Amino acid sequence: MKKYAEMTPEERRAEYAAVKAAYDGQKALGLKLNMARGKPGKAQLDMVMDLSHVLKEPADYMDGDLDCRNYGNVDGLPAAKRLFADILGCKPEQCFVGGNSSLQLMFDTISKAYINGLLHSEKPWCKLDTVKWICPVPGYDRHFKVTENFGFEMIPVPMTENGPDMDTVEQLIRDPAVKGMWNVPKYSNPEGIVYSDETIRRLASMKPAAPDFMLMWDNAYCVHEFDCDFRPFEDILSLCAQYGNADMIYEYASTSKITFPGAGVAVMATSEANLAYLNPIINVQIISYDKVNQMRHVKFLQDREHTLALMRRHTDILRPKFHAVLDALDREIRPLEIAQYNRPVGGYFVSLNAMPGTARRTLELCKEAGVTMTGAGATFPYGVDPNDSNIRIAPSLPPVEELEQAIAIFCNCLKLSALEKLGL
Amino acid sequence: MKKYAEMTPEERRAEYAAVKAAYDGQKALGLKLNMARGKPGKAQLDMVMDLSHVLKEPADYMDGDLDCRNYGNVDGLPAAKRLFADILGCKPEQCFVGGNSSLQLMFDTISKAYINGLLHSEKPWCKLDTVKWICPVPGYDRHFKVTENFGFEMIPVPMTENGPDMDTVEQLIRDPAVKGMWNVPKYSNPEGIVYSDETIRRLASMKPAAPDFMLMWDNAYCVHEFDCDFRPFEDILSLCAQYGNADMIYEYASTSKITFPGAGVAVMATSEANLAYLNPIINVQIISYDKVNQMRHVKFLQDREHTLALMRRHTDILRPKFHAVLDALDREIRPLEIAQYNRPVGGYFVSLNAMPGTARRTLELCKEAGVTMTGAGATFPYGVDPNDSNIRIAPSLPPVEELEQAIAIFCNCLKLSALEKLGL
Repeated sequence: MKKYAEMTPEERRAEYAAVKAAYDGQKALGLKLNMARGKPGKAQLDMVMDLSHVLKEPADYMDGDLDCRNYGNVDGLPAAKRLFADILGCKPEQCFVGGNSSLQLMFDTISKAYINGLLHSEKPWCKLDTVKWICPVPGYDRHFKVTENFGFEMIPVPMTENGPDMDTVEQLIRDPAVKGMWNVPKYSNPEGIVYSDETIRRLASMKPAAPDFMLMWDNAYCVHEFDCDFRPFEDILSLCAQYGNADMIYEYASTSKITFPGAGVAVMATSEANLAYLNPIINVQIISYDKVNQMRHVKFLQDREHTLALMRRHTDILRPKFHAVLDALDREIRPLEIAQYNRPVGGYFVSLNAMPGTARRTLELCKEAGVTMTGAGATFPYGVDPNDSNIRIAPSLPPVEELEQAIAIFCNCLKLSALEKLGL
Repeated sequence: MKKYAEMTPEERRAEYAAVKAAYDGQKALGLKLNMARGKPGKAQLDMVMDLSHVLKEPADYMDGDLDCRNYGNVDGLPAAKRLFADILGCKPEQCFVGGNSSLQLMFDTISKAYINGLLHSEKPWCKLDTVKWICPVPGYDRHFKVTENFGFEMIPVPMTENGPDMDTVEQLIRDPAVKGMWNVPKYSNPEGIVYSDETIRRLASMKPAAPDFMLMWDNAYCVHEFDCDFRPFEDILSLCAQYGNADMIYEYASTSKITFPGAGVAVMATSEANLAYLNPIINVQIISYDKVNQMRHVKFLQDREHTLALMRRHTDILRPKFHAVLDALDREIRPLEIAQYNRPVGGYFVSLNAMPGTARRTLELCKEAGVTMTGAGATFPYGVDPNDSNIRIAPSLPPVEELEQAIAIFCNCLKLSALEKLGL
């Protein structure tokens, strides 16, 4: 296959006609396919159905003297704290186990900073003129929506293959108005990059000018390999504490992609001092989270080893889906040199950079042919990708056959928009 | 029995000595009893255990095409909306079905007003110098903690036997800084008062100066009779709409005292216009609430009639507990004329007004004898009861035998503090 940039205009016109014919054929099928969100597929949900059946007798609801069916213990069941501490490598006393959503725990923590101020805040952030926030890009659209909601000024920092560009980050934190930073340290959303040890060390040892700087550590994919064995990760809480930054770090995780996405359990891990400060403030908004569901997860997941065994079964379902996407891209797109993409081994996404100025057009063409993708620009603050290039592919939801159809359409859309851009 | 106020000093001293001896005997038992919070008792929890077993097959998790195990539908399962609409008498489209906590839904709604502003707000409330809030007293301590958390100025309004003093309320709402009002319209916390039709009509037809006034309608005990048949209540959403106040009303309820207190399902009912405004803002903080637990409740509770049948079984457990408390008060306290209390037929509390200046002392004596009660002052904003008189009794948690011990101790503490106050 000839690279598109090296084709003559005639060759491009011929290629366009051929691809357009194929695309029109696909469009005529009237498909409805979805690669928009990192939703687990039905096979993954069916695999964990025993979760619903582990609680049988009233005795199963007891964690020592504590009846998980009743009110109380805003910071979660002791047994659930032990489970998450085992998975994350931190201490149970550092875990706040909440409801079904780690996003909500992240939002709530920032919301406490905004309404009440944090442990080391001079005042609530809503009383400040400007709050700035570091956003590695491309990143997770829902993170950006949270900081946008509070009116923070989001500062994009480019990702490298080792994580965010730390030279830039270290410059930015000298500004006391810079109050926090988003991170997905393992299999970043969308690129699937794993932060290097060096990047993690530089982050943990930062000395931000803001005394209440929040290093937001969304460890959403901490045990979520799909193409390799489990890769251990360092306990970020210990590392921050070593550098005198114990109260700077807020780590989050959940079972949303371990058990049921809509009915899992989420955790926040942070210093005991932060929890002593936050627990009573969170207790204003809720008496306690769903401890019955926490108990269900304790009985079902048991511990780290047992959880990792379950994750290997998820891997078996996810691997063929990611391969279907990457194989199609390797075959159809790579030789044409019209896009770059990474080859993640964990997480839930493939990130692709199309020819600058073609992402929006590509997704428009996809939509017309019945393929829903994450919106162009979504991986950037305010939904604006300055290069109109990044596209997030989420292969987890559709069965492999549907995925193959969807990615075939997507490849044709990439080709058409590239040819249009190059000129016909 | 002679009234304490009519006793001679010698008689009071003799009475004090006798009561003190009884109290010391009770204290020596080293009991640990709790009448502090409106927690359902173990028998109530054991009664609803089938809740955990209604979901069996993957097909049970489907609400039409919607798989409740996966992400999505921030405003809840359609079937859960229908269930709550049936119970509350409103429309399914007016229901936002959330997580396990109605308090959290209340907090979140006010938090949206504070951070983002509401549908009819000129600006977010955090940008205002003063926000005032009407608090019927005595009231629910957790409500007051929420409005205190946001720094609102809480204005206490006395309760009458028909609900809050409406003449005062109608004066207060002329101030545009008055942005909202707490209400527990049926079996108020703590007094168990049911708002009269006239009070409800006056509230629904109010014309507050603030365009974004929130009539907070915590219908926590909407189906929670314990000493009479179910008493129907009017749909407050329709009533407000009749008076042109559709967007002023925010109603809340939950299954916390129907199924599991810590693992129920909560609902907010408000106008469709409010929901259209709020849904995307709430979606910033969470992808979706636990729809599996919603589905469990749909299958278990089925509809209003079936829910009311279950409530009659709760009634059978609760009635003897309330009678144990009221009988003891009637026997030991009423003849002495040292306290007034109401005789609720629903809700979770008995409210007692001790001799002014003796509530704190009474509860101190209770604590010394191992009986934990709701803190004195808790039923007032900022925890300050100007008369140091109101005490909330929560009889639901202990078994009847323990309750009889606890209330016997409480009666002696009331007597001792009254005698101390009258002078010995």
